[in-house]
Amino acid sequence: MTSRSPEAPPVASSPDRREQSNAEALERLWASDPVLVDVRPAAEAVPGMTADTILTSGAPLAWEDYFGGQRSGILGGAVFEGLASDEHEADALIRRGEIRVEPCHDHGCTGSLAGIYTASMPVLVVENRAHGNRAFCNLFEGKSPQRLNYGVYNAAVRESLLFLQEVAGPVLGEAVRTAGGIPLKPIIARALHMGDELHSRNTAATLLFTRELFPALLELGRGSDSLQTLDYLRSSDYFFLRLSMASSKATADAAHGVQASSMVSAMTFNCRRFSLRVSGLGDTWFEAPLPSVEAKYFAGFGPADVEYMGGESVINETVGLGGFAQAAAFPLQEYQGGSPQRMIERNLAMYEITAGEHPEFKIPYFGYRGVPTGIDVLRVVATGIVPVMDIGVAGKGGGQIGAGVLSAPVACFEAAAEEYARRYPP
Amino acid sequence: MTSRSPEAPPVASSPDRREQSNAEALERLWASDPVLVDVRPAAEAVPGMTADTILTSGAPLAWEDYFGGQRSGILGGAVFEGLASDEHEADALIRRGEIRVEPCHDHGCTGSLAGIYTASMPVLVVENRAHGNRAFCNLFEGKSPQRLNYGVYNAAVRESLLFLQEVAGPVLGEAVRTAGGIPLKPIIARALHMGDELHSRNTAATLLFTRELFPALLELGRGSDSLQTLDYLRSSDYFFLRLSMASSKATADAAHGVQASSMVSAMTFNCRRFSLRVSGLGDTWFEAPLPSVEAKYFAGFGPADVEYMGGESVINETVGLGGFAQAAAFPLQEYQGGSPQRMIERNLAMYEITAGEHPEFKIPYFGYRGVPTGIDVLRVVATGIVPVMDIGVAGKGGGQIGAGVLSAPVACFEAAAEEYARRYPP
Repeated sequence: MTSRSPEAPPVASSPDRREQSNAEALERLWASDPVLVDVRPAAEAVPGMTADTILTSGAPLAWEDYFGGQRSGILGGAVFEGLASDEHEADALIRRGEIRVEPCHDHGCTGSLAGIYTASMPVLVVENRAHGNRAFCNLFEGKSPQRLNYGVYNAAVRESLLFLQEVAGPVLGEAVRTAGGIPLKPIIARALHMGDELHSRNTAATLLFTRELFPALLELGRGSDSLQTLDYLRSSDYFFLRLSMASSKATADAAHGVQASSMVSAMTFNCRRFSLRVSGLGDTWFEAPLPSVEAKYFAGFGPADVEYMGGESVINETVGLGGFAQAAAFPLQEYQGGSPQRMIERNLAMYEITAGEHPEFKIPYFGYRGVPTGIDVLRVVATGIVPVMDIGVAGKGGGQIGAGVLSAPVACFEAAAEEYARRYPP
Repeated sequence: MTSRSPEAPPVASSPDRREQSNAEALERLWASDPVLVDVRPAAEAVPGMTADTILTSGAPLAWEDYFGGQRSGILGGAVFEGLASDEHEADALIRRGEIRVEPCHDHGCTGSLAGIYTASMPVLVVENRAHGNRAFCNLFEGKSPQRLNYGVYNAAVRESLLFLQEVAGPVLGEAVRTAGGIPLKPIIARALHMGDELHSRNTAATLLFTRELFPALLELGRGSDSLQTLDYLRSSDYFFLRLSMASSKATADAAHGVQASSMVSAMTFNCRRFSLRVSGLGDTWFEAPLPSVEAKYFAGFGPADVEYMGGESVINETVGLGGFAQAAAFPLQEYQGGSPQRMIERNLAMYEITAGEHPEFKIPYFGYRGVPTGIDVLRVVATGIVPVMDIGVAGKGGGQIGAGVLSAPVACFEAAAEEYARRYPP
C-alpha cells in the first residue's frame, strides 16, 4: 500500500451510503464527455512535465527496483530525449536525481506497457468537457513489435519516435485544432458495435477517428506530411488505443474522490506490482504481486518468455471497456486466443462485480445491454471474481510477443476493502 | 417460369456429378476477385444501355403488370432523364416502345429496391479480375427515406440524383482511377469482422472503402467537390451496399453456367414475383408469388403499409452475405428487429442448404467458420429450409418504412428442382 496523503480519519458509513456514493461516482463517470482537443509536446501540455522528467507506468517505485524492459525503456527515453549520451550516463543521472523518473498517473497520463514519456514527445490532449479535467496519452509508435514502450531503444525506434515528433504529431495537432476538437465518446460507443472492445481491438475506432479527421486533413493540404500521417493512421489498427486510454483516464479521474465510494478509479502495474486506487480512499495505491497472463503468443514465443514491463491501458477496464466488453469483440480470439463462448462467460462475470451498466456503451450480442461499469472492491472480495483485462504481452529482451487476458490479483482488492472498512465503519 | 432460351435437352447426371458441378461453381465463386475499377455514366459503361433504356429490378414483366412504387419509379426515372416531360407522357412512350423498360440482370446490373437506372446515372463498375467479367450498380441516393429507388420522384429526389451525376460520380470516378482500382474482397472480408453482413449493414465496409479512397481524394485536390463527396460518404453508412451488390453480381455471374450444377446463381424480385436462376439451368427464371416479410418498422408504419417494389440486393445472399452472415452483424437487431439468438439460429440453418463454407469470408462468432455459400436448390427442397434475406422495406406511396427478413418462397426452388430432374435425369 503506497500512499502520499496523511491517514484519513474514519467516517461512519452504511451499505445505503456506499450505494449512494457509488451511484454518484458512476454518474460522474457516465456523464463524462472526453474530447480530443489538441496534440502537442508533453512539455507544453502535461502539468509538471519538465525537460528532465521521464514518466513511466505503475505506482511509484524506487529506481533500483526497476528491471528488464521497463528499466531499458526509461534509459532509452533519456537517450532519445538527449538527456544522456548513453544508458550508463542516463542511469547515473537518474541516481543523482538529475533525471526525474515519475509515475504517469501523477501527471494525468497513462502509459501503454512501459509507458515512457519524455518532454518532447507529442501527447494526445483529452478534455473531459463535462467536468473540466484533462488527461493525456502519447502516440502509438507503429506496427513494429520493437517499440520504446516495449522496452526497446535502437535506431529504428528512434526513427519512429522522430516521425511522431516531426510529422504525425504536428499534422494531427493542426488537424484536431482545425476540426475544433473531436468528441471521443460517440466513436467509442459506435466502435463497440463494430467488433472493438477498445483495448486490444481498436480497428473500428481508429477508422472512425480517421474519418472524423479527413475533412480537416483535406483543408490543411499539407501534402506529403498529410499523406505520411494518413499512412501511419492506416497502418495502425491500434492508433485509437492511446485515445481510448486518455479518454478513460479523463473519465475515471472525474469519478475519483467521492467520499464513501468503494469504486475503483484507477488500475495500473509496473514491472513489480499491480496497483489500484479507490474513489473514496484518496491517492493510496493498493498493491499486490503481479498475476500470470493467459496469452496467445506470436510464433516462436511461449509463457517462459513473458516479462512484465508495466501497463496502464487497464484504465480502459476501469471504465467498462476491454475485458469488460469482450462480447463486443469476438474477432479478438485471433489476437489473444480463447473462444467466443469463453469471452461471453468472462464478460458476464464482470456484471457481478460492477456497480452499474453503462447507458451509452452497449454490447450488441447481449441485446444492447450496457457494459458493466464501476468495479466495486467490496463485490470483488465478496464474490472472489476479479477483473479481467485484455493486454499486450512483452517479452524478455523487449518487444511484443503476444496478447492475452490478465486477471487482477485479489489481494489488492482485499487490502482496499480492509482500508474501506477502517475508513468507513458501519 | 420465364425463359428466353430454347428448351435444353436432358443430360444424364448423378449425385456425384452434381456435387462435382457444384464444387466447380463454388470454386469459381470463391476465386472471384471483384475490383471497383471506375465510376461513370451507365450509358458509357453498361452493355446495351441506350439513351432511351430504363432498367428496373426483377425478372421481365409486361409494362401493364408494374404497379405502385416500382411503376412510379420507372416513370420518375423517365422524367429525370428528360425522356418525357411528365409521368403521363412517360407512360405513353413506354406503351409505344419509345422508352424501353428492361431487367437490370440482362445488363449486368443489380437494382436496389425498385432499382431504377437511366443512361446518365453514374454506375460503379466492378471487374472480376479472376474471370474477366464485369458488373454494375448505381449509387446510394443518400439518407432520406424518400428516394427514386423507393418509388419517389420529386424535386428533392431530383436534386440528390443531380448531385450524384454532377459531383459524387465524377469525383469518385477520378479517385478510383487515380487509385488504380479498389479491390473489394478484402474490404468485405474485414467488414464481416466488424459487425457488417454487407446487406442491411454496411457501416464498416463504407468506412474501410472511404479510407482506401482518401489518399486519392487528397491527391486530386478538387476542393469543395471532394469535401462534398466526402460528406456524402460520411453520411451514408449504406454507401457500400451498392458496391457489395456489384461485387456479388460479378461473383455470382462467374459461377453461372456450370453444367449439372444445382446452385442458385441469382435471386431477384419485382413488384409481383420472386425469381431465381440456377447455374446449370441457363437463363430461365424460376418464379413464385412474393412471400411476406418479418420486419421492424419506422415509427408510424406497420405491416399493412408494406408494398413490394422489387429488389436485387438479394444477390448478396446468393454469394453467402446478408442473411447468410447475420451472426457477424448483431447490431442489425436495432435496424431490422430480432434477437441475437434468432440471428444465430437463422444463420446456422443456412449451412443446411448450401454447398460449402467460404474460405475467406468468415464469422468471428462462429469461431471464424466460413459463411455458408452456394444455395443448392435440391437441398432447399429436401430440407424445406429456405434462404433468408435482409432487406429494406418500402411502403405504399413510396419511401422506406422499415427493414426486415424475407424468407424466399419454396415454390421457385421446387420449380427449379423439377426442371433440374428433367434436364439432368439420374
